[in-house]
Amino acid sequence: MSVQLTSPGPTLGVVGGGQLGRMLGEAAGPLGVEVVVLDPTPDCPAAPVVTDQIVGGFDDPEGLRELADRADVLTFEIELADPELLETVNEETSVPVEPSPATLRTIQDKLVQKRTLAEAGIPVPDFRAVDTPEDLRAAGEEFGWPVMLKARRGGYDGRGNVAVDGPEDADDAMAAIGGDAMVETFVPFDRELSVIGVKGEDTTDAFPVTETIHEQEILRETVSPPRIGPETTADRSEIEARAYEVASDVLARMEGRGVYGIELFEIDGRILLNEIAPRPHNSGHWTIEGAVTSQFEQHVRAVMGWPLGSTERRCPTVTSNVLGNVSEPQPAELTGVETVLDEPGASLHWYGKREVRPLRKMGHVTTVGDDPDALLEHTRDVRAAVSFDTDRT
Amino acid sequence: MSVQLTSPGPTLGVVGGGQLGRMLGEAAGPLGVEVVVLDPTPDCPAAPVVTDQIVGGFDDPEGLRELADRADVLTFEIELADPELLETVNEETSVPVEPSPATLRTIQDKLVQKRTLAEAGIPVPDFRAVDTPEDLRAAGEEFGWPVMLKARRGGYDGRGNVAVDGPEDADDAMAAIGGDAMVETFVPFDRELSVIGVKGEDTTDAFPVTETIHEQEILRETVSPPRIGPETTADRSEIEARAYEVASDVLARMEGRGVYGIELFEIDGRILLNEIAPRPHNSGHWTIEGAVTSQFEQHVRAVMGWPLGSTERRCPTVTSNVLGNVSEPQPAELTGVETVLDEPGASLHWYGKREVRPLRKMGHVTTVGDDPDALLEHTRDVRAAVSFDTDRT
Repeated sequence: MSVQLTSPGPTLGVVGGGQLGRMLGEAAGPLGVEVVVLDPTPDCPAAPVVTDQIVGGFDDPEGLRELADRADVLTFEIELADPELLETVNEETSVPVEPSPATLRTIQDKLVQKRTLAEAGIPVPDFRAVDTPEDLRAAGEEFGWPVMLKARRGGYDGRGNVAVDGPEDADDAMAAIGGDAMVETFVPFDRELSVIGVKGEDTTDAFPVTETIHEQEILRETVSPPRIGPETTADRSEIEARAYEVASDVLARMEGRGVYGIELFEIDGRILLNEIAPRPHNSGHWTIEGAVTSQFEQHVRAVMGWPLGSTERRCPTVTSNVLGNVSEPQPAELTGVETVLDEPGASLHWYGKREVRPLRKMGHVTTVGDDPDALLEHTRDVRAAVSFDTDRT
Repeated sequence: MSVQLTSPGPTLGVVGGGQLGRMLGEAAGPLGVEVVVLDPTPDCPAAPVVTDQIVGGFDDPEGLRELADRADVLTFEIELADPELLETVNEETSVPVEPSPATLRTIQDKLVQKRTLAEAGIPVPDFRAVDTPEDLRAAGEEFGWPVMLKARRGGYDGRGNVAVDGPEDADDAMAAIGGDAMVETFVPFDRELSVIGVKGEDTTDAFPVTETIHEQEILRETVSPPRIGPETTADRSEIEARAYEVASDVLARMEGRGVYGIELFEIDGRILLNEIAPRPHNSGHWTIEGAVTSQFEQHVRAVMGWPLGSTERRCPTVTSNVLGNVSEPQPAELTGVETVLDEPGASLHWYGKREVRPLRKMGHVTTVGDDPDALLEHTRDVRAAVSFDTDRT
């Protein structure tokens, strides 16, 4: 394929203008790709770093048509994008949508996602659909308690997931989900891993395996390469080879170009697939400083149909999320930032959200160094210096 | 000092929205700093990656006042900014201007720049003011031919510089400059070097010494660290120490925070100062991939009064400029870009200029690797694949 650059450059239309849209914009500039985002929040996080924002809902037909009119390629940075609408607009305008709306539809519904992957022979935890508390109790009896109840749609950062300890909690759990649900065995994993995969025009590739650390089901830290922990006896390179194998099988099932976040459980030397996302993923933010090509640049390259960049890791890299440490929503004002700025090898990424809310992802801190274990402790110390709690400054 | 981040973030007003403004914008996003630029060209290179562009001349009082109204700090990315106007607006609005307009005034006039630096004991080539062809001939007799005649103001990329071989060329040379001029001895340097220095709130620092390669007085390539050439017998580390010393003396004479491009000659193991620029400089573009902190992030940190980042080099890095290989101005359309994208470890930076002109700087290619010598050859090959000449594709 041949690639020309012009000014104004080729334009990428992105459904969603949150932090992922913002970091896509930051990566697109050097490549000469202009970005326009569609997002319902005026002055969304991406707005200051992209060519333009169209203010409109993710499923707003007029907004999406306007986005398509201005774009050479459409993509999405949020699963709330509407696959039917994307298909319609693609048919109307012939502007390609990457990854394909069919992939988005499959992934959007966690039950359909799991079924699709299981049918492809990819190892997943036991799961099934549940419509009633009775279904849930039956599943718990069969899988063994506790189990993980998940809303089929719209969950993120632990929202829409409820751990259910026993049959007596089934009614409350179903009520908390309040819609279509699925249940999974609770996996007592040794660690969680992530692979950022990418499908290009003719090739697929993956970034190095990375360890992810969650708390209350929200990603807090990534460690790349994963720490060598005592809790597993399996050979690390064998585990990583299995993780790549699973990632490769996942990518083979997906339609359309782009970056995919592939979350994995490691348990007793085995790899189970947890969830996938058809977009850049929080577990891949380390690639901005830590890899030759960032996941955001890679996504831009992939969806534009351009050659992919090198996924090589440059050095051990750790990220730690800056979450909203507040009890009530309030205007965002992060203090203590000088400590991060003053730390050699630490990088700050601010997402530009107007309002901080409890546990909302507001930014992240990345550090690069030599020893992943030491780097994790160091990164925690650095990140702990920033706070939205004005009393703590 | 303490640093808070908010949304909308602190705003940096930049006079000039060319490629340096664009790369400042690309660096400011992650830091949560919003950028507004003032530039006379609608849809200037920086426009797609910054919050807003005010369309107005660099010396447009209304434009600059509007910029100051929207900004927490003002800076400039082009020496054509007007120091008097910056001072006036600073007095009217109390918005800080970094570096100081006084520094800009000193640097803008190459004669005043040289005098100031020479008076500070910094080694510079012999120089003097010339007002007439007679002055020029007298200087040539004294310095020895050839000499370098320079316009005192407004030159860049070799414009405003004329090499004068002998007394018979003096009249034509003065006519070509057509204004206030100065003359310098022609320095038969062994190589050219550059140091990107930075003045922060309380500290100064410098990025590692880098070799620069010019052709027709336009920077073509940078090699960091410099190649070990056979043409000098001096110890490399001693040369670099001298380069840092000169850079440090230069920074001590400058007023105001920010990044400074400091261009040097190396000759017979000595260092002479060539020219300085009170802004990020083409010879520092390698820091985007090659240093822990880029010169653009460093400039944003410095002018905001924030802690500086690490200037450490991550690995050997080479850049090669993409210049307009056309004989006439024409709409910019760069072909062969797929070759750069497909090369592992190569990064593309497109400046988003609408029109390509002969030898205009349109972008650059950076590669990272191990061996600077081999990397330079490799980078030349990669860069040679792109072209504005549609016949060559």
